[in-house]
Amino acid sequence: MIHKYCYFQGAITQFDKAHISLNDLGVLRGYGVFDFYRSYNGKPFHLKEHYARFQNSARSIGLTVPVSFKNFEKITLDLLKKNKVKDASFRAVLLGGPVQNSLAPARPTFYILNEEAYAPTDEQAKNGVSLMVHEYLRYIPEAKTTNYMEAVKMQKEKIKQKAYEILYVLNGEVLECSTSNIFMIKGKHLITPKKNILKGITRKVILKIAKKDFIIEERDVEIYELLLADEVFISGTNKEILPIIKVGKKVIGNGKVGEKTKLLMKLWKDITHNI
Amino acid sequence: MIHKYCYFQGAITQFDKAHISLNDLGVLRGYGVFDFYRSYNGKPFHLKEHYARFQNSARSIGLTVPVSFKNFEKITLDLLKKNKVKDASFRAVLLGGPVQNSLAPARPTFYILNEEAYAPTDEQAKNGVSLMVHEYLRYIPEAKTTNYMEAVKMQKEKIKQKAYEILYVLNGEVLECSTSNIFMIKGKHLITPKKNILKGITRKVILKIAKKDFIIEERDVEIYELLLADEVFISGTNKEILPIIKVGKKVIGNGKVGEKTKLLMKLWKDITHNI
Repeated sequence: MIHKYCYFQGAITQFDKAHISLNDLGVLRGYGVFDFYRSYNGKPFHLKEHYARFQNSARSIGLTVPVSFKNFEKITLDLLKKNKVKDASFRAVLLGGPVQNSLAPARPTFYILNEEAYAPTDEQAKNGVSLMVHEYLRYIPEAKTTNYMEAVKMQKEKIKQKAYEILYVLNGEVLECSTSNIFMIKGKHLITPKKNILKGITRKVILKIAKKDFIIEERDVEIYELLLADEVFISGTNKEILPIIKVGKKVIGNGKVGEKTKLLMKLWKDITHNI
Repeated sequence: MIHKYCYFQGAITQFDKAHISLNDLGVLRGYGVFDFYRSYNGKPFHLKEHYARFQNSARSIGLTVPVSFKNFEKITLDLLKKNKVKDASFRAVLLGGPVQNSLAPARPTFYILNEEAYAPTDEQAKNGVSLMVHEYLRYIPEAKTTNYMEAVKMQKEKIKQKAYEILYVLNGEVLECSTSNIFMIKGKHLITPKKNILKGITRKVILKIAKKDFIIEERDVEIYELLLADEVFISGTNKEILPIIKVGKKVIGNGKVGEKTKLLMKLWKDITHNI
């Protein structure tokens, strides 16, 4: 659910009273970027990193985020206050702006939606979920553009395959999921792809908190390695750490959530609950 | 310029009073298709073909055009009447629709903008224009999705190179331009790419009217062939037939608009002026 108040073009306003022009480049030409972050207990989680990534995404398609970090943070905190929530997610969106007859961006459209903090169900977190495998490389994978047509198009197939998420692979190489990063555990090694992916902030924090207990490898991962891993999980702002027990038709390990994934989930809970 | 009245979700309405929700999948996930057509002297040009292509584009990403052809035609004619114009272009847009927390399309957003019928300047049509060359394959090239991020991103470079349009090539194979199709003339042969392109309605009509004077070849075209062609031109709803005198740094033929292109331009004028 989207909360009542959002930020739109310079002011906090009611979500259902703010609108986009029919001729925005973000609509007519799919020209936009976004970032997705959340708060725990009223505190934005790693907001600086999200802002930096948002800037980077914008830059990669030739746009500029129109507010400073300080302002970005203020808007975020104001939204929490105005919507009277503490745990919430935020979707910052930057579009090319309205145009009359041109492919060239004009005055960008910038807004931030404040949404419920969704999470996998307790059952999903406890028992793990499945992935479907799909050959695909995102356009400018390092940036969070609004170009998710392939992910939307694949939703029906995902449901048909009873999968929770879509794993993108390219020529046998594991990349990322449609809205999350992927990790595998093999012995003492925690391994995650490094190239042609969106580097998630959750991914980054996991690599940090895992250092003590794992040998970290950021590198190319072949699909056969993933299928033969001891444990697999995905990560994302709203998914946090979510165990994967099946990839395509292959059961991972013994089909149960592994102890090392549980350890990381516990470490994650610790840092987000004591924020 | 966009005319005062548009069609939006079931009714003719003022363009500046119709809006898109901040959470439309067409915005948040770039999930949409469109079609672009025009009228000559109050008569929609090859509307059936445009409607069929629009349906096909929609289908290819899992959407359905929510109006029948009869209704589509009526809306088009009503817009001309309401805006008091006879020569105009139309942009029919179909988006995934507003969502709360999902990648799955809900109730689609459908609208038609009525716009001025832009055309190249007399000078451009008389003396020809240049293309820049860019390695790129559009996502689902046979469909007219709203995914034009690469085209928008390349606008600055296009201006820098003083080019009129961007020619997409893939591994040495000529495909299409960012918003037009491409043709080359070699002796009596009129040659145009067949695969991995959006099949323009203008392209289709050209192939029909050229039959009498040319040997038509729809086939793979290598970039070196294009550079060595006698004549080159591009086609599109608003560009009609526009001569190309330079591709990248290579001057085509003697750098002047060729006689055979002029013949086709004349044939085009005949059919559109006597509609």
